[in-house]
Amino acid sequence: MLNAVERKIEQFIEELQDKEVSSLYKKLPQGKRLRAKLILKIAGSSLPVVKTAAVVEMIHAASLLHDDVIDDADTRRSKPSLNALYGNKTAIMLGDILYSKGFFELNNISADVSKVVSNAVTQLSLGELKDVSLSSTFNLDREIYLEMIYQKTASLIEASSGAAALLAGKPKEVYMTYGRNLGLAFQMIDDILDITQDAQTLGKPALHDFVEGKTTLPYIYLYEALQDDEREKLRSLHAKALSKEEQGWILSNMKTHKIIERATLEAKTLIDEAIAVMDAHGETALSGIAKEMIERDF
Amino acid sequence: MLNAVERKIEQFIEELQDKEVSSLYKKLPQGKRLRAKLILKIAGSSLPVVKTAAVVEMIHAASLLHDDVIDDADTRRSKPSLNALYGNKTAIMLGDILYSKGFFELNNISADVSKVVSNAVTQLSLGELKDVSLSSTFNLDREIYLEMIYQKTASLIEASSGAAALLAGKPKEVYMTYGRNLGLAFQMIDDILDITQDAQTLGKPALHDFVEGKTTLPYIYLYEALQDDEREKLRSLHAKALSKEEQGWILSNMKTHKIIERATLEAKTLIDEAIAVMDAHGETALSGIAKEMIERDF
Repeated sequence: MLNAVERKIEQFIEELQDKEVSSLYKKLPQGKRLRAKLILKIAGSSLPVVKTAAVVEMIHAASLLHDDVIDDADTRRSKPSLNALYGNKTAIMLGDILYSKGFFELNNISADVSKVVSNAVTQLSLGELKDVSLSSTFNLDREIYLEMIYQKTASLIEASSGAAALLAGKPKEVYMTYGRNLGLAFQMIDDILDITQDAQTLGKPALHDFVEGKTTLPYIYLYEALQDDEREKLRSLHAKALSKEEQGWILSNMKTHKIIERATLEAKTLIDEAIAVMDAHGETALSGIAKEMIERDF
Repeated sequence: MLNAVERKIEQFIEELQDKEVSSLYKKLPQGKRLRAKLILKIAGSSLPVVKTAAVVEMIHAASLLHDDVIDDADTRRSKPSLNALYGNKTAIMLGDILYSKGFFELNNISADVSKVVSNAVTQLSLGELKDVSLSSTFNLDREIYLEMIYQKTASLIEASSGAAALLAGKPKEVYMTYGRNLGLAFQMIDDILDITQDAQTLGKPALHDFVEGKTTLPYIYLYEALQDDEREKLRSLHAKALSKEEQGWILSNMKTHKIIERATLEAKTLIDEAIAVMDAHGETALSGIAKEMIERDF
């Protein structure tokens, strides 16, 4: 069924009648298509469902293109990123093309689906902006972190579930709760992996987020757990290149205070809640996709 | 009536409930709001019309934000550009926020209007990409130039007229022809000004387009008018920093062959055609806005 989505995306791209865009699109990594899988699982594989899944994946690809420009990322899924290969200009424009073609196609699905999905794109752009702004501060507010990851990551997954529920005639709010929890957990785990994974596996420098100024959940919890003088030390290391020793200090304190366990438990709790909500609605098939979303290398 | 559009845009921005976005939006130059004026002239000032005008201006502002990042522009309307003040990241994201909020609001107007406008955004993004790609070639094909400026500039003006006609119950195709001609003429004049205006007035280096690799209409006509050896000289100057002498050579050849007159006549002919089409439909009020669009300092 995922093949039908791939073919629909290719058809949408061909409709643009632009050889350069067709060629650039072929160079983008397809990714795991988690959002499309989620939509198909909830709503089956009728034409409007396949179109919605294709649009959501195009929007997701567009957001990654802009994200990589913003993060000056050289790689995406262990391959050179499009901005690294063809420059920022091309990546920005290809993103705009995928966004706008996606929005155009939403008009051919339904107004309700279109509203849910386009609202999510506003949220994800607001979230990206907030992510950048927060990086210039030493944010210790968990609520602000949660709001930012809700906007940046969870909103489109929430909207995918919600749009699928609308198409399937299922209760929208329940499915949006499921998608929101999944999305929050997904980003929390991404942020944990930035700390636990080997720099080489990740293709980024060690503790990349913190060096970039991002105080993700584990740093917020670490700060809470530290003594006053240690707190000052952590603050002094924020948004700077870190020596091996400084990295070691952060990691050993995370270990001492069981920070990764605490943050991982929080993500898993969100997933358990999501599965429980779905089980209560007889949607046992949706627990698999929830697990797939968090089953990544720790 | 234009005030109602400004207030509607401000309302849309406030609805995002993000202080940073509200503050950034206030720093954007408002511009002449030509697209909003056009929409109001055609369709009056009912709420759907004001909303459509607000959305189109937000989309136009978004495209300028991305355009300035792509062109590494330091100024916009003689003021520092947003990317110059706050960096490319902020400019890209604010553009995405304005685009997506605009698309979201289109859902609250009508599916027909939404299709016309969102299709134009795809076209303008395709046009921007083509503009960048063509800059790495010495394009001498007038048709390719016309297609690119149609996509980059005329498509949104065409869509503005078309959307307004839909809202007013007027014949869409006729109004789209009017808007398309206006948009093509507008971009041709922009490209002529890059050659005729003083570098200081324009806030860009002299013959900026050609230095950037853009062979706009006057260069295509100049090449046609030159002898073989002169053609080779023109080709050798393409996409390079130009000495005063080289600038002088280009400008004096433009003068000898009356290139600016020829290109200006082509733009004026498009405007005259647009006015004639409207006159034939009893829309005499629309000739004023067509003239305003080309009445700029030569």
